[in-house]
Amino acid sequence: MTEDTKENVIPGSETELDSPDVRGYDFRGEFDVGELLESYATTGFQATAVAEAIDLIEQMREADATIYLTLTSNIVSSGLREVVAAMVREGLVDVLITTSGSITEDIIKSEKPFKMGEWEVDEAEMRESGINRLGNIFVPSDRYVWLESYLNDFFPDFFAEQKVRTPTAFSREIGERLDDPDSVLSQAAANDVPVYCPALVDAEVGNFLFYYRQNEEPEVGIEILEDYDSLIDEGLLAEETGLIVLGGGVPKHQAIMTNLFRGGADYAVYVSTGMEGDGSLSGAPPKEAVSWGKIKDGDRNHTLVEAEATLVLPLIVAGVLEDL
Amino acid sequence: MTEDTKENVIPGSETELDSPDVRGYDFRGEFDVGELLESYATTGFQATAVAEAIDLIEQMREADATIYLTLTSNIVSSGLREVVAAMVREGLVDVLITTSGSITEDIIKSEKPFKMGEWEVDEAEMRESGINRLGNIFVPSDRYVWLESYLNDFFPDFFAEQKVRTPTAFSREIGERLDDPDSVLSQAAANDVPVYCPALVDAEVGNFLFYYRQNEEPEVGIEILEDYDSLIDEGLLAEETGLIVLGGGVPKHQAIMTNLFRGGADYAVYVSTGMEGDGSLSGAPPKEAVSWGKIKDGDRNHTLVEAEATLVLPLIVAGVLEDL
Amino acid sequence: MTEDTKENVIPGSETELDSPDVRGYDFRGEFDVGELLESYATTGFQATAVAEAIDLIEQMREADATIYLTLTSNIVSSGLREVVAAMVREGLVDVLITTSGSITEDIIKSEKPFKMGEWEVDEAEMRESGINRLGNIFVPSDRYVWLESYLNDFFPDFFAEQKVRTPTAFSREIGERLDDPDSVLSQAAANDVPVYCPALVDAEVGNFLFYYRQNEEPEVGIEILEDYDSLIDEGLLAEETGLIVLGGGVPKHQAIMTNLFRGGADYAVYVSTGMEGDGSLSGAPPKEAVSWGKIKDGDRNHTLVEAEATLVLPLIVAGVLEDL
Amino acid sequence: MTEDTKENVIPGSETELDSPDVRGYDFRGEFDVGELLESYATTGFQATAVAEAIDLIEQMREADATIYLTLTSNIVSSGLREVVAAMVREGLVDVLITTSGSITEDIIKSEKPFKMGEWEVDEAEMRESGINRLGNIFVPSDRYVWLESYLNDFFPDFFAEQKVRTPTAFSREIGERLDDPDSVLSQAAANDVPVYCPALVDAEVGNFLFYYRQNEEPEVGIEILEDYDSLIDEGLLAEETGLIVLGGGVPKHQAIMTNLFRGGADYAVYVSTGMEGDGSLSGAPPKEAVSWGKIKDGDRNHTLVEAEATLVLPLIVAGVLEDL
Ligand SMILES: NC(=O)c1ccc[n+]([C@@H]2O[C@H](COP(=O)([O-])OP(=O)(O)OC[C@H]3O[C@@H](n4cnc5c(N)ncnc54)[C@H](O)[C@@H]3O)[C@@H](O)[C@H]2O)c1
Ligand SMILES: NC(=O)c1ccc[n+]([C@@H]2O[C@H](COP(=O)([O-])OP(=O)(O)OC[C@H]3O[C@@H](n4cnc5c(N)ncnc54)[C@H](O)[C@@H]3O)[C@@H](O)[C@H]2O)c1
Repeated sequence: MTEDTKENVIPGSETELDSPDVRGYDFRGEFDVGELLESYATTGFQATAVAEAIDLIEQMREADATIYLTLTSNIVSSGLREVVAAMVREGLVDVLITTSGSITEDIIKSEKPFKMGEWEVDEAEMRESGINRLGNIFVPSDRYVWLESYLNDFFPDFFAEQKVRTPTAFSREIGERLDDPDSVLSQAAANDVPVYCPALVDAEVGNFLFYYRQNEEPEVGIEILEDYDSLIDEGLLAEETGLIVLGGGVPKHQAIMTNLFRGGADYAVYVSTGMEGDGSLSGAPPKEAVSWGKIKDGDRNHTLVEAEATLVLPLIVAGVLEDL
Repeated sequence: MTEDTKENVIPGSETELDSPDVRGYDFRGEFDVGELLESYATTGFQATAVAEAIDLIEQMREADATIYLTLTSNIVSSGLREVVAAMVREGLVDVLITTSGSITEDIIKSEKPFKMGEWEVDEAEMRESGINRLGNIFVPSDRYVWLESYLNDFFPDFFAEQKVRTPTAFSREIGERLDDPDSVLSQAAANDVPVYCPALVDAEVGNFLFYYRQNEEPEVGIEILEDYDSLIDEGLLAEETGLIVLGGGVPKHQAIMTNLFRGGADYAVYVSTGMEGDGSLSGAPPKEAVSWGKIKDGDRNHTLVEAEATLVLPLIVAGVLEDL
Repeated sequence: MTEDTKENVIPGSETELDSPDVRGYDFRGEFDVGELLESYATTGFQATAVAEAIDLIEQMREADATIYLTLTSNIVSSGLREVVAAMVREGLVDVLITTSGSITEDIIKSEKPFKMGEWEVDEAEMRESGINRLGNIFVPSDRYVWLESYLNDFFPDFFAEQKVRTPTAFSREIGERLDDPDSVLSQAAANDVPVYCPALVDAEVGNFLFYYRQNEEPEVGIEILEDYDSLIDEGLLAEETGLIVLGGGVPKHQAIMTNLFRGGADYAVYVSTGMEGDGSLSGAPPKEAVSWGKIKDGDRNHTLVEAEATLVLPLIVAGVLEDL
Repeated sequence: MTEDTKENVIPGSETELDSPDVRGYDFRGEFDVGELLESYATTGFQATAVAEAIDLIEQMREADATIYLTLTSNIVSSGLREVVAAMVREGLVDVLITTSGSITEDIIKSEKPFKMGEWEVDEAEMRESGINRLGNIFVPSDRYVWLESYLNDFFPDFFAEQKVRTPTAFSREIGERLDDPDSVLSQAAANDVPVYCPALVDAEVGNFLFYYRQNEEPEVGIEILEDYDSLIDEGLLAEETGLIVLGGGVPKHQAIMTNLFRGGADYAVYVSTGMEGDGSLSGAPPKEAVSWGKIKDGDRNHTLVEAEATLVLPLIVAGVLEDL
């Protein structure tokens, strides 16, 4: 009986595969970061996806595609803010879509830094001393005191001509005022990159809009349909489009949904910690968007890096921007 | 040397702990689902959190707290739609916050069901035949053809008096029209539960608003600041508040952020697949919200069930609504 | 231009799908847990996999398949110990494969319970007072003092005739001594279910084997190849085999690898929190095992429930054992 | 009422924190990978943990600690095999603990490479053509045909003097034969680094041990208690110990459990995708091991990088080995 098992255990195989050998970085000789990144392609698992991401973004650039960058707010909470600002400055982004925390925090950081913190703290004590915890980042509450006065200066101008404004107008007019080359909004304004943010109320900028409306100008409002129209237009006007999707949520969906109007994005790179099996939009891999026509069916035109973004975005951007 | 290791390996312990024994369900005797749910409390790991969730929601009810239910869109894509509708019908929800996919899909399902599908398919072929995949659920594209004509009937009425409307008005007026006792929007309208959805454009209802604006009424718009004002008021007017947070994203943040105005929610139950270590709002556990003052510091007033919601929501609701 | 987009946005679909409608539990009328479990089949996402798991285990029973149950140690740490003991008692298990912590903790629990605890504690203080934390479960260190004396009674008998023994002999002879109907090892011994555990040293039983060898009997040993032989035989002798895999690690791999000898398992149910994208054995879904011939290629003969086991195992077992 | 909310919404904060500012890599100027890695420290979330990992491993080296490296098998399946071999070669490892797949695959790769593949394939077709899938890596089945003949040459020598051998003897004697500077086992043998693997049967080397025992030598066996004894000794003889834990499972637990005998490891770096909330050993963060006395309570003497290892190990090793 034992002998019969062999055909199950070692069936053998005839044809040799012609794909590359799995092989990691060779630490002999002088260290070369370009070769390190190249070795990711043949390291397997998620490293391979990092190499694919670099390659796809290079393809987007060569094709002169309209590149959409979508971000969750915590990207700006982290040191990736400076990396994203560099991407915008270097022309790697044509359309930016995000949530309201990004806008709030980019403004604050243009004046006052966030501080490194800890994951485990006494939360009640933190509240007592006015230190807000955001993962392992601390945001002292005086940042929001400053933000209030900054926005109270801004709002009268912003609503001067029109009482009802759009999120893109908000981002652009704030971005024009900020004096910080590492600000995402400032770079976006300087480089004519629109910043979409349909749920603009959902962060501290919303809180101060609320107070302003309550205390100063009951007629002010934020209207979101006009922006949706222009976002759809971005896709319709583009020859080709590419998506760089950091995290999930509303920004991710805005990007793929509006690309549906043009028959799908041509390229897509997702970086995500989402779980496919929960059926969420955030966890849905690029291939799910193919069934909807939100990403085009193509030969290796999309990839998913399953990773927390701080680990990989600097590498991917380095791979694309530097001659690595 | 070996003997010296014993004080490290078996240091011993003096005092006996007085918490309950870890002990699972006893399958001897007649099966009793109430006892099964009770056994979760002493089963450990995530089962314990399910028992805590039931307990906390019961406390919310006893305290007559204003209960906020937040949902991601895929909750409505799944069979949890009927469970959520039951929660609203049975008075378990006072304020509902969600994203636009929920509204879109609740309308569709009031007329045409979604169909069970598969996770692994030929996505390009699916696109070809007009079948959209949403996890293991299939949504034939004719649903959206129907939705367009349904909304084209609705829009002229909706925008008749005012060209710029709010998401809560949208949900309520649609909810009043839907004739389906299993519709979340219909139950919400019937039970005076407002449905907040700041990023209303970000789903197919947004697409048809876009077409309507393009083709029929260039002046129509969706304004979101007024809703933010009322959502803050919900918390300010409440004696106590409790949160039931299914998934993350904008709805979760709207709930905790607006509870900050009142000094924090009194109770919170989160059900989430999010990852804490990515620093995301979606992955942040209840305790992080304590440092911000969004949830009150209290003795066991919050819990987090780390689970995909379809697995646990029916159990939690059964535990609360039935005399289990 | 806008009009042209419609064929992208609403392509329509012709044929109606004949799969079931997505539909959740109906909370109207009297509560019925059997119907609740049935509703999981059409709830989508992971709930559907729970219904499939119940169905597949029922098929295994009807086919009189040899059922392998594999478990990680923490299953026994939790209240699932009693559920697993019930599975063995009720004839739902023919072969058990686990890791050494299960054996260690099952012995302890036959005499002294584990206690409910907390996820967040002062860990150094815990060490000071001899309380070990295992997730949200506390294990006072006196349990290991007791275990030492228990095993020091057992070892002389166990090694009396032969100095080198196997893990299955260890589990069986201990199981025969334990006087606790909720003990997994006791039920296994009583029902002639062998308990495989190749890495028997990797827990406290290993520690006490080490001390015994150092202090009493330098010749004692644990040999693992003989067990591997019998485990392969279990599969070769079976008409059909079915796998119930709780968590990953060595037990999962032992089960699928030894089923390779017979040409693959006929049915497989995995319950796991593992991540596919890390390329791990623990995260590999059933379909990966098909390429290796470890699970047979078949029509819906396997499923994966992406869940923490305490949430779903009691439900699955209830679905199978009770007439639900 | 609105005004009263301000003390909740912007409580302010008095004292400025003295931790570093959150700040990401500055892409202006010439690219410098050393500065990139340094910027991880202040990027937040998981990037910070990468910087901590580099720092802790440097501390281990400076303290001349005995360094334990633990690995799951898929590390060797991937291109990290070459990185691990470099770590051993460069003296970064004193004790290696792994599972059987690592040993199997390191032997194969010394002669025949694994090939880059795809996550999504027709699994039944793969089985048909004898291509095994391991994540996105393909292993043609002829590798195992070769392995069988290689081991059949080796076994008679290995069992010549003693019929019952240990896993460390197996790894060492194979390692001495392999002629490949990128082989982990070869480097380990050359550098006197023992390779522990208690569950040696659980991979193809086990399968061929089984056939050899069945067909050639019924008396051969693998005994695991002797190795456990020496592994405990490694810790007892060391002044200080440090752990580099890649993934979880038996290797991780062997490392921390045997460090308990000495009163805990002095330093620990974990790289893991495990989930804390499932109560698993694999998902348990370093702090859980503190309550058990397996890691010493210390000031920032441990960290956890929540990441798939291929993404970060090359960076961490580059940070430590190169003068970055
Ligand atoms: N059906 C759909 O999902 C759908 C349809 C149309 C539009 N959209 C749009 O996509 C955007 C993003 O969707 P979203 O914000 O509703 O949430 P999401 O799907 O992006 O999920 C956010 C987070 O919630 C958690 N989560 C999601 N599903 C879960 C589950 N089943 N169990 C436990 N936790 C879960 C996860 O951590 C996830 O990352 C929204 O604007 C929405 O309108 C979604
Ligand atoms: N109580 C303990 O966990 C314990 C005690 C003593 C010794 N040990 C030893 O630690 C080593 C590693 O433990 P292991 O191999 O048993 O498994 P593990 O705890 O390392 O888990 C392996 C994988 O199984 C999955 N998993 C674990 N718990 C799960 C759950 N509750 N629900 C769903 N999936 C889950 C996860 O993907 C995990 O990565 C073993 O040698 C064991 O003997 C463990």
